[in-house]
Amino acid sequence: MDETLDSYDVVVIGAGSTGENVAGRVAGHGMSVAIVESHLVGGDCSYYACTPSKAMLRPPHVLAEARAVAGAREAATGTLSVDAVLERRDKFASHWKDDGQLPWLRDHGIDLVRGRGRLSGVREVTVETDAGVRVLDARRAVAICTGSDPLVPDIPGLRAAQPWTNREAISAPRVPESLAVIGGGAVGVELASAWKSLGADVTMLVREERPLAKMETFAGDAVLGALRELGIWVVTETTVVEVDRKADGTVDVTLGDGAVVHAQEVLVATGREPRTRDLGLEVVGLAPGEWIDVDDHLRVRAVAEGWLYAAGDVTHRALLTHMGKYQARICGDVIAAGDEGAASCPAAIADSIAVTRVVFTDPEVASVGLSEAAARERKVNVKVVDFDIGQIAGARLHSDDYHGQARLVVDDDRHVIVGATFVGRGVSELLHSATIAIVGEVTLERLRHAVPAFPTISEIWLRLLETLGY
Amino acid sequence: MDETLDSYDVVVIGAGSTGENVAGRVAGHGMSVAIVESHLVGGDCSYYACTPSKAMLRPPHVLAEARAVAGAREAATGTLSVDAVLERRDKFASHWKDDGQLPWLRDHGIDLVRGRGRLSGVREVTVETDAGVRVLDARRAVAICTGSDPLVPDIPGLRAAQPWTNREAISAPRVPESLAVIGGGAVGVELASAWKSLGADVTMLVREERPLAKMETFAGDAVLGALRELGIWVVTETTVVEVDRKADGTVDVTLGDGAVVHAQEVLVATGREPRTRDLGLEVVGLAPGEWIDVDDHLRVRAVAEGWLYAAGDVTHRALLTHMGKYQARICGDVIAAGDEGAASCPAAIADSIAVTRVVFTDPEVASVGLSEAAARERKVNVKVVDFDIGQIAGARLHSDDYHGQARLVVDDDRHVIVGATFVGRGVSELLHSATIAIVGEVTLERLRHAVPAFPTISEIWLRLLETLGY
Repeated sequence: MDETLDSYDVVVIGAGSTGENVAGRVAGHGMSVAIVESHLVGGDCSYYACTPSKAMLRPPHVLAEARAVAGAREAATGTLSVDAVLERRDKFASHWKDDGQLPWLRDHGIDLVRGRGRLSGVREVTVETDAGVRVLDARRAVAICTGSDPLVPDIPGLRAAQPWTNREAISAPRVPESLAVIGGGAVGVELASAWKSLGADVTMLVREERPLAKMETFAGDAVLGALRELGIWVVTETTVVEVDRKADGTVDVTLGDGAVVHAQEVLVATGREPRTRDLGLEVVGLAPGEWIDVDDHLRVRAVAEGWLYAAGDVTHRALLTHMGKYQARICGDVIAAGDEGAASCPAAIADSIAVTRVVFTDPEVASVGLSEAAARERKVNVKVVDFDIGQIAGARLHSDDYHGQARLVVDDDRHVIVGATFVGRGVSELLHSATIAIVGEVTLERLRHAVPAFPTISEIWLRLLETLGY
Repeated sequence: MDETLDSYDVVVIGAGSTGENVAGRVAGHGMSVAIVESHLVGGDCSYYACTPSKAMLRPPHVLAEARAVAGAREAATGTLSVDAVLERRDKFASHWKDDGQLPWLRDHGIDLVRGRGRLSGVREVTVETDAGVRVLDARRAVAICTGSDPLVPDIPGLRAAQPWTNREAISAPRVPESLAVIGGGAVGVELASAWKSLGADVTMLVREERPLAKMETFAGDAVLGALRELGIWVVTETTVVEVDRKADGTVDVTLGDGAVVHAQEVLVATGREPRTRDLGLEVVGLAPGEWIDVDDHLRVRAVAEGWLYAAGDVTHRALLTHMGKYQARICGDVIAAGDEGAASCPAAIADSIAVTRVVFTDPEVASVGLSEAAARERKVNVKVVDFDIGQIAGARLHSDDYHGQARLVVDDDRHVIVGATFVGRGVSELLHSATIAIVGEVTLERLRHAVPAFPTISEIWLRLLETLGY
């Protein structure tokens, strides 16, 4: 009996959002599937990233929005309830238990195997479970969806100081008195904002000139200004040379210029590394600890016969929950289509033309596709158009003192948009309009017939198109 | 000298948002232009409709949003400041003065002629100004942008009762003790919500089964539920047979079944009629008091030689500020292109395929293109897909108790979207994604590559596409 149970069409390693979506997709195509998970079904996004961080960020943001509108302001003069915010976060993190995810697996006929899974041969995964070792035979495919871990850089004393990563920073049971954040990416700025809003003294240490250095510069500048207005001490163009956890439990962070930042906790948010060290990659000739290179059908390039797939962070294509889920849908369809059908399956083109990002600070930053710099690097015949969202009636109605900025990056040969960035309150829902314009390659000539409703913030589209001569 | 001044390339009658946009557009093309206005430059939208109504609605809505989020709720327990809301409205209505609009006209080289303008011949407009009669010669074109007036139906006693229209309801200096609203369209539901939020006892009298009867039924049902939850007494499937303003200044509204609604004021919001009664239409063979029929280049069909244009409400194409501005941009381009160039100008196709509407209630209702019923009437091979927005993580993060619904209407032959309706908080900015999909005729196969960011409400797109089999 055991042998029958342990043979599946597809075995997925890692039950984060990407793995769940691969499993759900192939199950939907009628295939049998096992999913292997050593920690929590649902993955980092559900417990240590996107979901709980937004659960913490939304209360201070919506309160600030209410206070930005005359009439509501007078009714919102109380104090943010720290306890209620942390409870909200705990609830959205399902109290770090995954019971709530199991019915979904069951309903989709997906077998969950709890334990550490490793490749142990061609089409074979071996799992160390509490009840012993199980060998899973994957008749059709294995999909690696193990994601990524926080990268802790080699700074003297840092590891010994037991720094927070996103995991500890998102699940901390109480507000630290003070927090030093190393890194100015999305994780850094979101968590700095969250803990500052809840009362911590926060210092941010950013290597570049501004946070969000990979995005358009006006986005980083806007967030830098907002963080400082919030009372966060932001040091830019700095390096950390040493970290020391002292006897009293506090931490000293020494900067390149000799200055010392003293804090109760230190958060490292300097990047990610692939979770592939202990995955048996060597069995199939891949290097443990490296990102896994896949083609646009999510097939591992280095492995013959097309039975090994990877999707999500572990591929290093786009380290974002929603892009992982996108890859998962395509990966699942390709696996289900089989060798013959795969050729007609869609490829994961969005990874190269339309990666979407939202940074949930106040103001929000939302971008899709290429920045101006990236478009120039790709030799696009670039035309850039900027407009102040604060000029739009819908924005002024949203907040009495609205600040925002929008940019479109246009391919002037093809008259299509190849990138867009919006900064301001409420722009996270505006982004998908640009994403559809880019993916649909809708020409500027056609876009003039897409009429945003008055008075919405979306009317920024009119001004951008008008500035482009439409 | 006077004769020179009184000859222009273009004369625009009506300086509402549509007229301003026609004038701005032709001025941008280097033409001389006069704009004639008998009341306030900026038009109804700026003073008696969209802008001030949203200024009144935003404070209660953002306060409700804050109260829907644990942590913020505890800080937002105060009372909405009625005085501050009315001050906010007054400010957004520029205190019903148009000084703020004049620099824009000046900067664009547009001459403002204050007074009532009437067609007095071919390419000729005569204006009664305070300083006497001026005759404006329009070398190229006259554009009629006089908009619409509230329609007051023939109900015994109604006119004599001096009911509020949108004008009085939006500019009332203080909150009425009680208000009876006749009509369940966008104006009715928005103003009923606004005054209820500010403390009035509100009764709504709706002829149809539900408010917003021209939209998808689930939208009207959601708004009906929300109005009732707000404490508005909504009577559906009713008729008003008599209205009586009594000696004490209050009003009795008698319904078809004999019931009487007693209120301090009565608001009529049952539709619009063209503002064309006193416009000299008879001079060019058109019927005063009628809507003006135009082609997709905004040329008045009944007038030869193509010198007479009309745009905005007065054309009855789509009675919405943003659609009027859209027509204005096209009209201006067509006028500037002249007889020969006009053929290659874009036509106002959005009026028939992608009219956008947002009703700013809580929840918001946002729609574009065809409803299911309208698509079936047009013999589209319809496929409809619905999804509960409350299931989306981004929605639950937005409000702890999010309610919402989305529908796409798909042309199953062409695999493109022809209509979309969203109901819920924050959906007004989501709408433009659907508008671009419809206008761009982006296929469903292509839309799967437009990846909404997690966790936004825009992820509703994933579920809708998944339900459609993508």
